[in-house]
Parts: sequence; structure tokens; C-alpha cells
Amino acid sequence: MGRWEPNARGRLAQAAIELYVERGYEQTTVAEIAKRAGLTERTFFRHFADKREVLFSGSGSLRDHLVNAVDAAPDSAAPIDVIAGAVASVGVLFHERHESARQRQAVIAANAELRERELIKLASLSAALADALRRRGVPDPAASLAAEAGIAVFKIAFERWISGTGEPDLSRFVREAFDELKAVTAGR
Amino acid sequence: MGRWEPNARGRLAQAAIELYVERGYEQTTVAEIAKRAGLTERTFFRHFADKREVLFSGSGSLRDHLVNAVDAAPDSAAPIDVIAGAVASVGVLFHERHESARQRQAVIAANAELRERELIKLASLSAALADALRRRGVPDPAASLAAEAGIAVFKIAFERWISGTGEPDLSRFVREAFDELKAVTAGR
Repeated sequence: MGRWEPNARGRLAQAAIELYVERGYEQTTVAEIAKRAGLTERTFFRHFADKREVLFSGSGSLRDHLVNAVDAAPDSAAPIDVIAGAVASVGVLFHERHESARQRQAVIAANAELRERELIKLASLSAALADALRRRGVPDPAASLAAEAGIAVFKIAFERWISGTGEPDLSRFVREAFDELKAVTAGR
Repeated sequence: MGRWEPNARGRLAQAAIELYVERGYEQTTVAEIAKRAGLTERTFFRHFADKREVLFSGSGSLRDHLVNAVDAAPDSAAPIDVIAGAVASVGVLFHERHESARQRQAVIAANAELRERELIKLASLSAALADALRRRGVPDPAASLAAEAGIAVFKIAFERWISGTGEPDLSRFVREAFDELKAVTAGR
């Protein structure tokens, strides 16, 4: 106990998602996750507040990545292009993580409480993007609309990426969905 | 008990929202709502499953109204125009209800559980709109994107309508927000 466990966090996350897929999220206990990972419950709770957090611990870095990308965009860029660039840039976070993202999404789709948590996560990402645009001087409602559009595109692109086979590039799906959104809102 | 109570549902809803505003949602009991309305708890439970449902019982008719409007749109209309028309048409449901809508929104904003429920409501409206577009033959992702865009516009227009004074027309805010969305996605 208390000693350093090599990649304990990654092993716990991997064990958790395996068990959620095999047995269902509700039926899996923290004790079983720790056992599968060859670690103790105490180690689990040093890394995650509860079994749900294993599925949502990436939200913070996703938000930070999006906000940093908005902050770094050129001053001259139109708000929708700032958002499109930021959302497309998260592809790098999911590089070689297609299979684990697919498994995570299947677990979430099967549980109402997790679907709700996912909606809250997406709403908070939208709010963070809108705040970042306002800091660039984009007024409302343009800031909120561009942010909401960006998250809608992200959600739809992510679903299509998940449904693909092999190791497709998420960024490509994001750019395609933005082009579709532009066509749709232009009435085409 | 059991006898017909004139407009019991409306009186209970009115009493509930008054108490939620005065004392807070969490602090209000069904017994207090019934007492304020001059009715019994049994009557309350004939109309609402619980105190939360008072705030969300309109979701079904909102969804039906949106879906019917999509179904009734001319075949030749572009998907985004079908959605814009449907969302603008819900203004009629909120006619002379600005003050009660404002109060409801303040209660929801003050409570995390209610904010989550509101997000779920909006997500289910978006799903219903996308389904209605697919029934018209609109392919994905255009159907999902147009539906998500419509709900984003509805959310933002509703917030702006709530913030207004007097008895403004919700439909006007919806049309303005759609115009803004078109400008934003066109990169203006």
C-alpha cells in the first residue's frame, strides 16, 4: 500500500472499461476493477473519486485543449473558423484511442445516468468555448451560437468516427461535419 | 377528495412555482404546494408524479408541437428552414406566459438537478426533430445537424426572450437567432 505502482491509473482505467463492457457498468464494483488491475481499492481511490469518474476524467483536458486552441487562434479569424479549428484539433487527443473511445461510448449509451453525465459534459464544453470567444471580444449571441454549433458538430463527428472501422482520423470527421453544417445552415 | 376541483392542475402549478421562487425548490414540499393551492396532496399526485414534474410537464406538448410543425412543412422547404419554422412556431405556446416562463427558468437555474433535467429535455427535443426530418427523407448528418442547430437557437432565443421586459414575442427572438446563426456559420 502506498508504494509506487507503475501506470496504476492507466491499468485501472483499462480494467474498468473492460469490466463495464463485459458485465455492465452498474454490475461492476470498484473492488472488481482493482482486482482486475492487480491493485488495491485504496489505489483506485487515489486516482478516481468513484467508478463513474473513470469514464469522465478526460473531460478536463479536453476542455483545456479546446480553450487553449481558441486562445491561440489568429485575431483575424472568424468565430466559426476559430471554433472549427479548435474542435478539429482535439483529434490529437484521440490518436490511437479509437477502440477505447468506442468501448467508452458503448458503456455510456447503455446507461441513462451516464448519458445524462455526457450531456452535462458537452454543455460545459460549450459554455467554456463561448467564454473563450467572449474573451476574444466576440459578442453574444454570436459567441454562444458558434460554441453550440461547435459542440453539435463535435458530437455528430465523434459518433461517426466511433462507427468507423480501423483507426480513422477524428479531425477529418470534424472538418466534414463543419462543412455539412455550413451547407445546412445556408439552406442547401 | 375525489371530487372535481376547478382547474386543479393550473392552481397546483401556480402554487408550486410561487413556492419554488419564495423558498427554493429543494425546501418546498408537496404538502405545502397542495395547501397553498387549497387542495389535497392526493389531488396533487393525481396531476403530477412529483414536485419536479410540475416544471417539466410541458415538455411533451412542446415536442409534439415541434414535430407536427416539421411534418406539416412543405416538401420543397430546405431542412434548416423547416426547423426554423417549427422552432419559431412554438412562440404561440408561450403567449402571455412570459412571467411564468421567467420564474420557471430562475428556479431551474438555481438547482443543479433541474439544470440537468433541462439539458435532457433539450436533447430529447433535438432527437425528436432529427427523427422528424429523417421521416421527410433528410439524410444524416444533415438531419442531426439541422436539429441540433434548431435546439441551440431555441435555447439562446429563449434566454434572450426571458431576459426581456414586457410581453415580447418569442418567435421574433427565434427568427433573429436563426439569422445570427446563418451569419455566424457563414463566417461573418
